[in-house]
Amino acid sequence: MPSFNLKDYLAHRQALVEAKLNESLPVAYPEKIYESMRYSLLAGGKRLRPILCLATCELLGGTLEMAMPTACALEMIHTMSLIHDDLPAMDNDDFRRGKPTNHKVYGEDIAILAGDGLLAYAFEYLTIKTQNVDPRHLLKVVTRLGHAVSAAGLVGGQVVDLDCEGKPDVTVETLNFIHAHKTGALLEASVLSGADLAGANEEQIARLKTFAQNIGLAFQIIDDILDITATSEELGKTAGKDLTAQKTTYPSLWGLEESKVQADQLITQAKAALDIFGSQAAPLLAIADFITARKS
Amino acid sequence: MPSFNLKDYLAHRQALVEAKLNESLPVAYPEKIYESMRYSLLAGGKRLRPILCLATCELLGGTLEMAMPTACALEMIHTMSLIHDDLPAMDNDDFRRGKPTNHKVYGEDIAILAGDGLLAYAFEYLTIKTQNVDPRHLLKVVTRLGHAVSAAGLVGGQVVDLDCEGKPDVTVETLNFIHAHKTGALLEASVLSGADLAGANEEQIARLKTFAQNIGLAFQIIDDILDITATSEELGKTAGKDLTAQKTTYPSLWGLEESKVQADQLITQAKAALDIFGSQAAPLLAIADFITARKS
Repeated sequence: MPSFNLKDYLAHRQALVEAKLNESLPVAYPEKIYESMRYSLLAGGKRLRPILCLATCELLGGTLEMAMPTACALEMIHTMSLIHDDLPAMDNDDFRRGKPTNHKVYGEDIAILAGDGLLAYAFEYLTIKTQNVDPRHLLKVVTRLGHAVSAAGLVGGQVVDLDCEGKPDVTVETLNFIHAHKTGALLEASVLSGADLAGANEEQIARLKTFAQNIGLAFQIIDDILDITATSEELGKTAGKDLTAQKTTYPSLWGLEESKVQADQLITQAKAALDIFGSQAAPLLAIADFITARKS
Repeated sequence: MPSFNLKDYLAHRQALVEAKLNESLPVAYPEKIYESMRYSLLAGGKRLRPILCLATCELLGGTLEMAMPTACALEMIHTMSLIHDDLPAMDNDDFRRGKPTNHKVYGEDIAILAGDGLLAYAFEYLTIKTQNVDPRHLLKVVTRLGHAVSAAGLVGGQVVDLDCEGKPDVTVETLNFIHAHKTGALLEASVLSGADLAGANEEQIARLKTFAQNIGLAFQIIDDILDITATSEELGKTAGKDLTAQKTTYPSLWGLEESKVQADQLITQAKAALDIFGSQAAPLLAIADFITARKS
């Protein structure tokens, strides 16, 4: 297998996604809402969801161009979920990606509307901008994205998460439910929407679903670990928040060492699910490794 | 033209829509969020948006069955906009349709998430449930609904509305902008999505757009009038709120009598736009008349 340079790959894809996101949402009247949406949408971040979508579409013989509108829509949806999660009525966070949160800058009313606007625009944008894709495949993407955000997806995960706040006896099953929905659903949709666009068959979808679910859970375990081991500066958000809030996390249930072991196992299983794709899967395999190796 | 019984027509369509909405969103874990969504989705109301969608689809030779999932999705989106508009950070309303608002019953966090969940689910629902429609037509519906909610639609209208709060010098142009976006955009999408589903041509879309924009504005003028002339009991929400809040309304700019004249003119123009459809347009013409005749 030729060596694969993940750093260059990610930098290249991130630059493509940044450029597209920047032109996806020009400022118009009333300027304040567009500025608020752009403030959070263009606040950086790893762009993991768009990159997973692009990589999966290419893995199955699709092109970057086919997947780019869906990739951007995924980041709009992810951004909406962050803006709403940070609200005072929810997690009440003041900082995100090293900057004041949306409602801290624009006020709660605008932050709520910016989230609504991003979620709605994601569907407009992907259906207008996608070219050279079978309309039936594109409809599958719409279904998948809607499902990922709905009460059967990240909204449901956030509800259970809020419900567990301050409760000392959260089980690992509940914790798994929260993360499979709150973060997992959209990560899975990122991978599988890329597959939908390329017209994936059932076996390919099943393999990619296993891959996505495993890296999604590993991603969250590592997030929990980093909340303990990294500094606020490294994270770009308040570190140690879970401990202060006495929140149940994987490290609080399993300890740091076992959490790392579990994350590594999930990544191994994720990678094994992609064996049918051979060396074409190099980017997704490297991204899976990156999830446990990351420092922020 | 045979006489058209609007009362029976509306009652029949409302019953169909209620039944479909009721089965559209079964309760699952975590129950609280589904109950919250159902609380607002099934709180009654005129179901004007679904009925407009169904009527327009039928006008152009489509069937009720083709349009029903989109009709329900429109009501989910409308409900989301009401839940979020009522939030303390927005209009801070305690009552809606004669019942405590969503956040008063379930809390602000759940109310925000219920709105998000309804918006996302609308797109999942309509793409899963719609049958016997050209997928390209269905993609147009997705685009249209996304656009109607985005910053170029109702979100933008709400931003300008919030901005005008307590300002004494709001012009009629700004007021028109607010209502064309805050209420008009989704009413227009209701009519035109019905047309999309039936495969409308450009001329038909143009006529129906004129119809929708005129009834949308007339609807709002009548809303403003009713806020002054109707009781809270009749409205199912606090009456006289605009006056208390010193809000600029059409009656505050034009007076009650001239406002009524303007609404009537808009309805006349709306109906004239449908002359190409002949007697088939009877339901839409009667709905237009109903908008100015309604008491709540």
